[in-house]
Amino acid sequence: MYEELKEIKNLNPKKFIEEKAKEISDIVGDGVAINALSGGVDSSTVTMLGHRALGDRNKTYFIENGLMRQNEPEQIVAIFQELGVPIEVVDAKEQFFAALKGVTDPEQKREAVTQTFYKDVFGKLVRESGAKYLLQGTILTDVDETAAGIKRQHNVFEQIGIDPQEAFGYKILEPLVQIRKDGVRKVAEALGLPESIYNRMPFPGPALAARVIEEATPERIEIAREANYIVEEELAKEIALKHINPFQYMAILHKDRVTGMRDGKRDFGLQIEVRCWDSIDARTATPTDVSYEARKRIADRLTKEVPGVVSVTYNLAEKPPSTMEAI
Amino acid sequence: MYEELKEIKNLNPKKFIEEKAKEISDIVGDGVAINALSGGVDSSTVTMLGHRALGDRNKTYFIENGLMRQNEPEQIVAIFQELGVPIEVVDAKEQFFAALKGVTDPEQKREAVTQTFYKDVFGKLVRESGAKYLLQGTILTDVDETAAGIKRQHNVFEQIGIDPQEAFGYKILEPLVQIRKDGVRKVAEALGLPESIYNRMPFPGPALAARVIEEATPERIEIAREANYIVEEELAKEIALKHINPFQYMAILHKDRVTGMRDGKRDFGLQIEVRCWDSIDARTATPTDVSYEARKRIADRLTKEVPGVVSVTYNLAEKPPSTMEAI
Repeated sequence: MYEELKEIKNLNPKKFIEEKAKEISDIVGDGVAINALSGGVDSSTVTMLGHRALGDRNKTYFIENGLMRQNEPEQIVAIFQELGVPIEVVDAKEQFFAALKGVTDPEQKREAVTQTFYKDVFGKLVRESGAKYLLQGTILTDVDETAAGIKRQHNVFEQIGIDPQEAFGYKILEPLVQIRKDGVRKVAEALGLPESIYNRMPFPGPALAARVIEEATPERIEIAREANYIVEEELAKEIALKHINPFQYMAILHKDRVTGMRDGKRDFGLQIEVRCWDSIDARTATPTDVSYEARKRIADRLTKEVPGVVSVTYNLAEKPPSTMEAI
Repeated sequence: MYEELKEIKNLNPKKFIEEKAKEISDIVGDGVAINALSGGVDSSTVTMLGHRALGDRNKTYFIENGLMRQNEPEQIVAIFQELGVPIEVVDAKEQFFAALKGVTDPEQKREAVTQTFYKDVFGKLVRESGAKYLLQGTILTDVDETAAGIKRQHNVFEQIGIDPQEAFGYKILEPLVQIRKDGVRKVAEALGLPESIYNRMPFPGPALAARVIEEATPERIEIAREANYIVEEELAKEIALKHINPFQYMAILHKDRVTGMRDGKRDFGLQIEVRCWDSIDARTATPTDVSYEARKRIADRLTKEVPGVVSVTYNLAEKPPSTMEAI
């Protein structure tokens, strides 16, 4: 279905926005469209385009899956509120944690998050909304990776539990499919989105569930959330000082316990791994040369502020053979 | 039993050696003594003192527990052979691995190694040797730590399965009990032991079993052995260049698996944690500021040379709340 796709070269963001808003408006007519906002740059851009084209006839849902970072849902909703774009927050935490219960295999964890999102939560919203149009933030790199066999191509309607045969008339709109990440960032900026969105660090779909080795319980996700908050805060200082310019950084809660000591007693405690990557295109990556002082400061805060943490490590290996996320 | 102990101040190593050799000789008379050599500075020093006092009437055993580092048994035996001290190597690998089978709790692992050493292997040797004297490398710090409740005080004869009541006449000799590690190093040097022994990095009793999180199978110990060899080799270069002067360093094989990629395919592989510590007295410690280049070189070798390793980390947290070894 993407065979004829051509990348848009020499992108003019303002012209692109006008054209795509008109296309969406022409196709949807006086119908209703729907989209899911994660707060990433792709889905944020699609949300703005849908709103520009359709106003309130584009319904945007933010699914609170319980796996987002500290204050992330509130911040995303506030950003769009200020831009005059209404966002409906759907609390689906219990459904996601129920699906993740007892799941330890990384692939099964990803699948549990994906399936809960499409089948149980977003699928239901699509069916109930009466929308026949679904706006998606697919970019050209996603299409390339599908063709190369790196990502699986999913029929989105099948994923959300709608049989495309029976449900004739459903249509997916992918306004970003001829541009790549750098283009999306330019379009996002031209749409008036703040830098926290258009320069947002990638945060893949399984969210904090990918930052916890083995089972992602609410308690373990909370530890990973606190750890990621500290790591992001401390590394943001280093970035502001222009000491480093990483592509992505994170904290990972390990399952392995290691021996530590607290108040003179043995404490078989938790270990947090800090990863910080220099990368151009995410295909290869090198550990960022974070200063000794900054690394110590991070370790100091993690062991003092996150309950149960006795040990902290920093990634050393390149991608490949490593990958950016741990699971 | 140690209440009257006084530390020897202003140690004169040569005089100390003469006095202790005479003491041992006076006590053992024409009897037979026995000791176990691990290759650490304490047991090596005791071996030399025993040999000086008793010649071949001190029997020294090196227990090959399968948990030593690369070539360690061969190197230790060769060092003593060159010094004219006969060492009997006892292959007890199978007994140790049998005791470690299925054991995942760190304390139980330590206990399995200790019990196999005393009850099953060394205890049997003591009983069969006819020796009534046991030379031990206890130092003053061990006594202090026992008094402070940090280490448990064991009756060694009970440990080796000899009832001190029934077996009247057994005696433990502890020639190093009035000096500390720095004193032992001076005595070791004066005894003609090479620097690889008298400046030997601490390598605690559970050996590589403490460098493997969870079960210590022969296969997992072999991975930890290869990883420790590479880490020691690379950090030795940094030490030789006087870039760093660490107290202790090691590689730890984690149980957690992390996602990696090899030949373009997903590889759910192994992670090695590198730890390197600056410390004066092991009571507190700080991660060594190893250069970015050296850390990368270590990670590069570990991922290329140790089968299955896709990720490498470096410790960041201080002791406390961390500890030097991971288990």
